[in-house]
Amino acid sequence: MELIAERGYRGTSLAAVAERAGLTQQGLLHHFPSKELLLVGVLEARDRWDTAAAAATGAWRTDTLAGLVEYNAGRPGVVQTYTVLAGDSVTEDHPARDFFERRFRRVREGLAGVLRTEYGDRLPGGLTPERAAPLLAAVMDGLQLQWLLDPAEVDMAAAFGDFLALLGAAEGEEDASAADGGRDEG
Amino acid sequence: MELIAERGYRGTSLAAVAERAGLTQQGLLHHFPSKELLLVGVLEARDRWDTAAAAATGAWRTDTLAGLVEYNAGRPGVVQTYTVLAGDSVTEDHPARDFFERRFRRVREGLAGVLRTEYGDRLPGGLTPERAAPLLAAVMDGLQLQWLLDPAEVDMAAAFGDFLALLGAAEGEEDASAADGGRDEG
Repeated sequence: MELIAERGYRGTSLAAVAERAGLTQQGLLHHFPSKELLLVGVLEARDRWDTAAAAATGAWRTDTLAGLVEYNAGRPGVVQTYTVLAGDSVTEDHPARDFFERRFRRVREGLAGVLRTEYGDRLPGGLTPERAAPLLAAVMDGLQLQWLLDPAEVDMAAAFGDFLALLGAAEGEEDASAADGGRDEG
Repeated sequence: MELIAERGYRGTSLAAVAERAGLTQQGLLHHFPSKELLLVGVLEARDRWDTAAAAATGAWRTDTLAGLVEYNAGRPGVVQTYTVLAGDSVTEDHPARDFFERRFRRVREGLAGVLRTEYGDRLPGGLTPERAAPLLAAVMDGLQLQWLLDPAEVDMAAAFGDFLALLGAAEGEEDASAADGGRDEG
Protein backbone atom coordinates (compact mmCIF):
# COMPACT_ATOMS: atom_id res chain seq x y z
CA MET A 1 0.00 0.00 0.00
CA GLU A 2 2.87 2.35 0.84
CA LEU A 3 4.65 1.63 -2.44
CA ILE A 4 1.47 2.10 -4.46
CA ALA A 5 0.90 5.45 -2.75
CA GLU A 6 4.49 6.50 -3.54
CA ARG A 7 4.93 5.10 -7.05
CA GLY A 8 1.52 4.26 -8.50
CA TYR A 9 0.40 1.10 -10.27
CA ARG A 10 3.15 0.89 -12.91
CA GLY A 11 5.96 1.79 -10.55
CA THR A 12 5.10 -0.92 -8.01
CA SER A 13 7.15 -3.98 -9.00
CA LEU A 14 7.25 -7.35 -7.24
CA ALA A 15 10.96 -6.71 -6.63
CA ALA A 16 10.26 -3.39 -4.86
CA VAL A 17 7.51 -4.95 -2.72
CA ALA A 18 9.77 -7.86 -1.75
CA GLU A 19 12.52 -5.46 -0.74
CA ARG A 20 10.18 -3.23 1.32
CA ALA A 21 8.65 -6.27 3.02
CA GLY A 22 12.06 -7.77 3.80
CA LEU A 23 11.37 -10.89 1.72
CA THR A 24 13.18 -12.48 -1.18
CA GLN A 25 11.30 -12.26 -4.46
CA GLN A 26 10.89 -16.06 -4.25
CA GLY A 27 9.38 -15.68 -0.80
CA LEU A 28 6.91 -13.05 -2.04
CA LEU A 29 5.97 -15.20 -5.07
CA HIS A 30 5.19 -18.03 -2.66
CA HIS A 31 2.35 -15.88 -1.23
CA PHE A 32 1.36 -14.00 -4.40
CA PRO A 33 2.21 -15.81 -7.66
CA SER A 34 1.84 -12.67 -9.87
CA LYS A 35 1.69 -8.89 -9.66
CA GLU A 36 -2.07 -9.02 -10.40
CA LEU A 37 -2.72 -11.38 -7.49
CA LEU A 38 -0.53 -9.31 -5.18
CA LEU A 39 -2.61 -6.24 -6.07
CA VAL A 40 -5.86 -8.17 -5.55
CA GLY A 41 -4.47 -8.88 -2.07
CA VAL A 42 -3.94 -5.15 -1.55
CA LEU A 43 -7.52 -4.38 -2.63
CA GLU A 44 -8.88 -7.11 -0.35
CA ALA A 45 -6.92 -5.62 2.56
CA ARG A 46 -8.28 -2.14 1.75
CA ASP A 47 -11.85 -3.49 1.73
CA ARG A 48 -11.28 -5.14 5.13
CA TRP A 49 -9.84 -1.95 6.64
CA ASP A 50 -12.59 0.25 5.22
CA THR A 51 -15.21 -2.14 6.58
CA ALA A 52 -13.56 -2.20 10.01
CA ALA A 53 -13.26 1.62 10.06
CA ALA A 54 -16.93 2.01 9.14
CA ALA A 55 -17.99 -0.61 11.70
CA ALA A 56 -16.15 1.32 14.41
CA THR A 57 -18.52 4.26 13.83
CA GLY A 58 -21.66 2.06 13.80
CA ALA A 59 -23.45 0.57 10.78
CA TRP A 60 -22.73 1.69 7.20
CA ARG A 61 -24.94 4.57 6.13
CA THR A 62 -25.01 6.74 3.01
CA ASP A 63 -22.97 9.35 4.87
CA THR A 64 -20.34 6.67 5.61
CA LEU A 65 -20.23 6.10 1.84
CA ALA A 66 -19.81 9.83 1.22
CA GLY A 67 -16.98 9.83 3.77
CA LEU A 68 -15.34 6.92 1.95
CA VAL A 69 -15.45 8.80 -1.36
CA GLU A 70 -13.85 11.79 0.33
CA TYR A 71 -11.20 9.54 1.91
CA ASN A 72 -10.47 7.96 -1.50
CA ALA A 73 -9.77 11.42 -2.92
CA GLY A 74 -6.76 11.43 -0.58
CA ARG A 75 -5.32 8.10 -1.73
CA PRO A 76 -5.04 8.26 -5.53
CA GLY A 77 -2.46 5.43 -5.67
CA VAL A 78 -4.79 2.72 -4.44
CA VAL A 79 -7.76 4.17 -6.36
CA GLN A 80 -5.59 4.04 -9.50
CA THR A 81 -4.69 0.41 -8.73
CA TYR A 82 -8.37 -0.46 -8.27
CA THR A 83 -9.35 1.28 -11.54
CA VAL A 84 -6.61 -0.37 -13.64
CA LEU A 85 -7.19 -3.85 -12.24
CA ALA A 86 -10.99 -3.63 -12.42
CA GLY A 87 -10.85 -2.52 -16.07
CA ASP A 88 -8.33 -5.22 -16.92
CA SER A 89 -10.35 -7.90 -15.14
CA VAL A 90 -13.11 -7.94 -17.80
CA THR A 91 -10.89 -9.85 -20.23
CA GLU A 92 -11.15 -13.63 -20.55
CA ASP A 93 -9.34 -15.68 -17.90
CA HIS A 94 -7.90 -12.63 -16.13
CA PRO A 95 -6.49 -13.61 -12.70
CA ALA A 96 -8.55 -10.86 -10.98
CA ARG A 97 -11.84 -11.52 -12.83
CA ASP A 98 -13.26 -13.83 -10.20
CA PHE A 99 -12.34 -11.39 -7.40
CA PHE A 100 -14.13 -8.47 -9.08
CA GLU A 101 -17.19 -10.49 -10.07
CA ARG A 102 -17.62 -11.65 -6.46
CA ARG A 103 -16.75 -8.21 -5.09
CA PHE A 104 -19.41 -6.47 -7.18
CA ARG A 105 -22.08 -8.98 -6.10
CA ARG A 106 -21.14 -8.40 -2.47
CA VAL A 107 -20.99 -4.60 -2.94
CA ARG A 108 -24.40 -4.45 -4.65
CA GLU A 109 -25.95 -6.57 -1.89
CA GLY A 110 -24.26 -4.48 0.79
CA LEU A 111 -25.36 -1.18 -0.76
CA ALA A 112 -28.94 -2.42 -1.15
CA GLY A 113 -28.86 -3.31 2.55
CA VAL A 114 -27.56 0.13 3.54
CA LEU A 115 -30.29 1.82 1.48
CA ARG A 116 -33.02 -0.45 2.85
CA THR A 117 -32.00 0.22 6.45
CA GLU A 118 -32.03 3.96 5.79
CA TYR A 119 -35.10 4.30 3.57
CA GLY A 120 -37.14 1.10 3.66
CA ASP A 121 -38.48 -0.52 0.49
CA ARG A 122 -38.59 2.63 -1.63
CA LEU A 123 -36.10 5.52 -1.79
CA PRO A 124 -37.42 9.10 -1.83
CA GLY A 125 -36.08 9.39 -5.41
CA GLY A 126 -38.39 6.54 -6.44
CA LEU A 127 -36.15 3.45 -6.81
CA THR A 128 -36.08 0.28 -4.74
CA PRO A 129 -32.80 -0.41 -2.87
CA GLU A 130 -32.02 -3.29 -5.27
CA ARG A 131 -32.37 -1.06 -8.34
CA ALA A 132 -30.43 1.83 -6.80
CA ALA A 133 -27.49 -0.33 -5.65
CA PRO A 134 -25.84 -1.00 -9.06
CA LEU A 135 -26.20 2.71 -9.90
CA LEU A 136 -24.49 3.67 -6.63
CA ALA A 137 -21.58 1.32 -7.34
CA ALA A 138 -21.40 2.54 -10.96
CA VAL A 139 -21.29 6.21 -9.98
CA MET A 140 -18.43 5.58 -7.52
CA ASP A 141 -16.36 3.71 -10.13
CA GLY A 142 -17.13 6.05 -13.01
CA LEU A 143 -16.32 9.16 -10.99
CA GLN A 144 -13.00 7.65 -9.87
CA LEU A 145 -12.03 7.16 -13.51
CA GLN A 146 -12.88 10.74 -14.50
CA TRP A 147 -11.19 12.13 -11.36
CA LEU A 148 -7.95 10.16 -11.85
CA LEU A 149 -7.70 11.49 -15.42
CA ASP A 150 -8.60 15.09 -14.60
CA PRO A 151 -8.53 15.91 -10.87
CA ALA A 152 -8.69 19.67 -11.50
CA GLU A 153 -11.97 19.32 -13.43
CA VAL A 154 -13.79 16.60 -11.49
CA ASP A 155 -14.75 16.99 -7.82
CA MET A 156 -15.47 13.37 -6.94
CA ALA A 157 -16.92 14.03 -3.48
CA ALA A 158 -19.22 16.86 -4.64
CA ALA A 159 -20.49 14.81 -7.58
CA PHE A 160 -21.15 11.81 -5.34
CA GLY A 161 -23.08 14.10 -2.99
CA ASP A 162 -25.19 15.23 -5.94
CA PHE A 163 -26.00 11.61 -6.70
CA LEU A 164 -26.98 10.86 -3.09
CA ALA A 165 -29.26 13.89 -3.24
CA LEU A 166 -30.90 12.46 -6.38
CA LEU A 167 -31.53 9.16 -4.63
CA GLY A 168 -33.15 11.10 -1.84
CA ALA A 169 -30.35 10.72 0.67
CA ALA A 170 -30.11 14.47 1.28
CA GLU A 171 -33.41 14.48 3.11
CA GLY A 172 -33.02 15.52 6.69
CA GLU A 173 -29.52 16.89 6.11
CA GLU A 174 -28.55 20.53 5.73
CA ASP A 175 -29.07 20.48 1.97
CA ALA A 176 -32.56 19.00 2.17
CA SER A 177 -33.76 21.14 -0.74
CA ALA A 178 -31.42 19.41 -3.21
CA ALA A 179 -33.81 16.62 -4.10
CA ASP A 180 -36.61 18.99 -5.09
CA GLY A 181 -34.64 21.40 -7.22
CA GLY A 182 -33.24 23.97 -4.81
CA ARG A 183 -29.56 23.13 -5.16
CA ASP A 184 -27.16 25.87 -6.25
CA GLU A 185 -23.91 25.59 -8.20
CA GLY A 186 -20.57 25.34 -6.40
CA MET B 1 -13.69 -3.82 -34.93
CA GLU B 2 -14.54 -7.23 -36.46
CA LEU B 3 -11.60 -8.91 -34.74
CA ILE B 4 -12.41 -7.32 -31.39
CA ALA B 5 -15.99 -8.55 -31.71
CA GLU B 6 -14.76 -12.07 -32.53
CA ARG B 7 -11.80 -12.40 -30.18
CA GLY B 8 -12.02 -9.68 -27.52
CA TYR B 9 -9.31 -7.36 -26.29
CA ARG B 10 -6.61 -9.95 -25.47
CA GLY B 11 -7.16 -12.00 -28.61
CA THR B 12 -6.78 -9.06 -30.98
CA SER B 13 -3.08 -8.92 -31.90
CA LEU B 14 -1.39 -6.49 -34.27
CA ALA B 15 -0.48 -9.50 -36.42
CA ALA B 16 -4.13 -10.59 -36.73
CA VAL B 17 -5.26 -7.05 -37.56
CA ALA B 18 -2.56 -6.67 -40.21
CA GLU B 19 -3.59 -9.96 -41.82
CA ARG B 20 -7.30 -9.08 -41.83
CA ALA B 21 -6.58 -5.64 -43.27
CA GLY B 22 -4.29 -7.05 -45.95
CA LEU B 23 -1.27 -5.15 -44.65
CA THR B 24 2.16 -6.24 -43.53
CA GLN B 25 2.76 -5.78 -39.80
CA GLN B 26 5.30 -3.07 -40.74
CA GLY B 27 2.63 -1.31 -42.81
CA LEU B 28 0.16 -1.41 -39.89
CA LEU B 29 2.81 -0.13 -37.45
CA HIS B 30 3.38 2.81 -39.80
CA HIS B 31 -0.20 3.95 -39.08
CA PHE B 32 -0.49 2.73 -35.45
CA PRO B 33 2.83 2.41 -33.59
CA SER B 34 1.40 0.19 -30.79
CA LYS B 35 -1.59 -1.98 -29.94
CA GLU B 36 -2.83 0.71 -27.51
CA LEU B 37 -2.79 3.38 -30.22
CA LEU B 38 -4.49 1.05 -32.70
CA LEU B 39 -7.28 0.48 -30.17
CA VAL B 40 -7.57 4.22 -29.50
CA GLY B 41 -8.10 4.51 -33.27
CA VAL B 42 -10.90 1.92 -33.02
CA LEU B 43 -12.57 3.84 -30.18
CA GLU B 44 -12.27 7.13 -32.11
CA ALA B 45 -13.91 5.46 -35.12
CA ARG B 46 -16.71 4.12 -32.91
CA ASP B 47 -17.33 7.61 -31.49
CA ARG B 48 -17.52 9.04 -35.03
CA TRP B 49 -19.97 6.37 -36.19
CA ASP B 50 -22.15 6.71 -33.11
CA THR B 51 -22.25 10.49 -33.55
CA ALA B 52 -23.12 10.14 -37.24
CA ALA B 53 -25.84 7.56 -36.48
CA ALA B 54 -27.36 9.82 -33.82
CA ALA B 55 -27.14 12.89 -36.10
CA ALA B 56 -29.08 10.98 -38.77
CA THR B 57 -32.05 10.81 -36.38
CA GLY B 58 -31.82 14.50 -35.38
CA ALA B 59 -30.05 15.99 -32.35
CA TRP B 60 -28.80 13.87 -29.43
CA ARG B 61 -31.41 13.47 -26.73
CA THR B 62 -31.54 11.41 -23.55
CA ASP B 63 -33.47 8.74 -25.46
CA THR B 64 -30.64 8.61 -28.02
CA LEU B 65 -28.32 7.94 -25.05
CA ALA B 66 -30.61 5.17 -23.82
CA GLY B 67 -30.56 3.71 -27.34
CA LEU B 68 -26.76 3.84 -27.34
CA VAL B 69 -26.59 1.92 -24.04
CA GLU B 70 -28.92 -0.71 -25.50
CA TYR B 71 -26.81 -0.89 -28.68
CA ASN B 72 -23.63 -1.30 -26.58
CA ALA B 73 -25.20 -4.32 -24.86
CA GLY B 74 -24.99 -5.99 -28.30
CA ARG B 75 -21.28 -5.28 -28.87
CA PRO B 76 -19.41 -6.53 -25.79
CA GLY B 77 -16.07 -6.74 -27.62
CA VAL B 78 -15.71 -3.02 -28.21
CA VAL B 79 -17.19 -2.19 -24.79
CA GLN B 80 -14.58 -4.51 -23.26
CA THR B 81 -11.85 -2.74 -25.24
CA TYR B 82 -13.09 0.66 -24.05
CA THR B 83 -13.24 -0.51 -20.41
CA VAL B 84 -9.75 -2.06 -20.39
CA LEU B 85 -8.09 0.89 -22.16
CA ALA B 86 -9.89 3.54 -20.10
CA GLY B 87 -8.88 1.83 -16.84
CA ASP B 88 -5.31 1.41 -18.05
CA SER B 89 -5.09 5.03 -19.20
CA VAL B 90 -5.03 6.43 -15.64
CA THR B 91 -1.40 5.36 -15.18
CA GLU B 92 1.44 7.81 -15.73
CA ASP B 93 2.49 8.39 -19.35
CA HIS B 94 0.01 5.87 -20.75
CA PRO B 95 -0.28 6.29 -24.56
CA ALA B 96 -4.11 6.55 -24.31
CA ARG B 97 -4.21 8.94 -21.33
CA ASP B 98 -4.44 12.09 -23.44
CA PHE B 99 -7.19 10.58 -25.60
CA PHE B 100 -9.35 9.69 -22.58
CA GLU B 101 -8.77 12.98 -20.77
CA ARG B 102 -9.85 14.92 -23.87
CA ARG B 103 -12.70 12.50 -24.56
CA PHE B 104 -14.18 12.88 -21.07
CA ARG B 105 -14.06 16.68 -21.30
CA ARG B 106 -15.83 16.52 -24.65
CA VAL B 107 -18.35 13.95 -23.38
CA ARG B 108 -19.18 15.97 -20.24
CA GLU B 109 -19.67 19.13 -22.34
CA GLY B 110 -21.77 17.25 -24.87
CA LEU B 111 -23.95 15.64 -22.20
CA ALA B 112 -24.47 18.97 -20.45
CA GLY B 113 -25.59 20.40 -23.81
CA VAL B 114 -28.04 17.54 -24.39
CA LEU B 115 -29.53 18.01 -20.93
CA ARG B 116 -29.75 21.80 -21.30
CA THR B 117 -31.55 21.51 -24.64
CA GLU B 118 -34.00 19.05 -23.16
CA TYR B 119 -34.57 20.59 -19.72
CA GLY B 120 -33.17 24.10 -19.58
CA ASP B 121 -31.04 25.32 -16.67
CA ARG B 122 -32.41 22.90 -14.07
CA LEU B 123 -33.34 19.24 -14.45
CA PRO B 124 -36.59 17.98 -12.89
CA GLY B 125 -34.47 15.91 -10.47
CA GLY B 126 -32.88 19.14 -9.20
CA LEU B 127 -29.37 19.29 -10.72
CA THR B 128 -27.97 21.72 -13.27
CA PRO B 129 -26.88 20.18 -16.61
CA GLU B 130 -23.22 20.77 -15.71
CA ARG B 131 -23.54 18.88 -12.42
CA ALA B 132 -25.55 16.04 -13.92
CA ALA B 133 -23.17 15.47 -16.89
CA PRO B 134 -20.25 13.81 -15.00
CA LEU B 135 -22.77 11.56 -13.20
CA LEU B 136 -24.31 10.51 -16.51
CA ALA B 137 -20.88 9.62 -17.92
CA ALA B 138 -19.94 7.83 -14.68
CA VAL B 139 -23.10 5.72 -14.66
CA MET B 140 -22.54 4.59 -18.26
CA ASP B 141 -18.92 3.57 -17.56
CA GLY B 142 -19.61 1.97 -14.19
CA LEU B 143 -22.55 -0.07 -15.49
CA GLN B 144 -20.46 -1.32 -18.42
CA LEU B 145 -17.87 -2.64 -15.97
CA GLN B 146 -20.46 -4.47 -13.85
CA TRP B 147 -22.24 -5.81 -16.93
CA LEU B 148 -19.06 -7.12 -18.60
CA LEU B 149 -18.19 -9.01 -15.41
CA ASP B 150 -21.68 -10.36 -14.76
CA PRO B 151 -24.08 -9.99 -17.72
CA ALA B 152 -26.65 -12.36 -16.17
CA GLU B 153 -26.94 -10.20 -13.03
CA VAL B 154 -26.69 -6.66 -14.45
CA ASP B 155 -29.21 -5.28 -16.95
CA MET B 156 -27.27 -2.28 -18.22
CA ALA B 157 -30.11 -0.74 -20.26
CA ALA B 158 -32.69 -1.08 -17.47
CA ALA B 159 -30.32 0.41 -14.90
CA PHE B 160 -29.48 3.31 -17.19
CA GLY B 161 -33.20 3.92 -17.66
CA ASP B 162 -33.57 4.05 -13.86
CA PHE B 163 -30.87 6.72 -13.73
CA LEU B 164 -32.51 8.81 -16.48
CA ALA B 165 -35.74 8.59 -14.47
CA LEU B 166 -33.90 9.92 -11.41
CA LEU B 167 -32.58 12.87 -13.40
CA GLY B 168 -36.13 13.56 -14.47
CA ALA B 169 -35.80 12.26 -17.99
CA ALA B 170 -38.79 9.93 -17.66
CA GLU B 171 -41.18 12.86 -17.64
CA GLY B 172 -43.50 12.80 -20.60
CA GLU B 173 -42.62 9.20 -21.42
CA GLU B 174 -44.69 6.13 -20.68
CA ASP B 175 -43.15 5.64 -17.23
CA ALA B 176 -43.74 9.22 -16.14
CA SER B 177 -44.44 8.11 -12.57
CA ALA B 178 -40.87 6.89 -12.05
CA ALA B 179 -39.48 10.23 -10.91
CA ASP B 180 -41.99 10.60 -8.12
CA GLY B 181 -41.82 7.13 -6.68
CA GLY B 182 -44.27 5.04 -8.69
CA ARG B 183 -41.83 2.72 -10.40
CA ASP B 184 -42.24 -1.03 -9.96
CA GLU B 185 -39.66 -3.80 -9.97
CA GLY B 186 -38.80 -5.63 -13.22
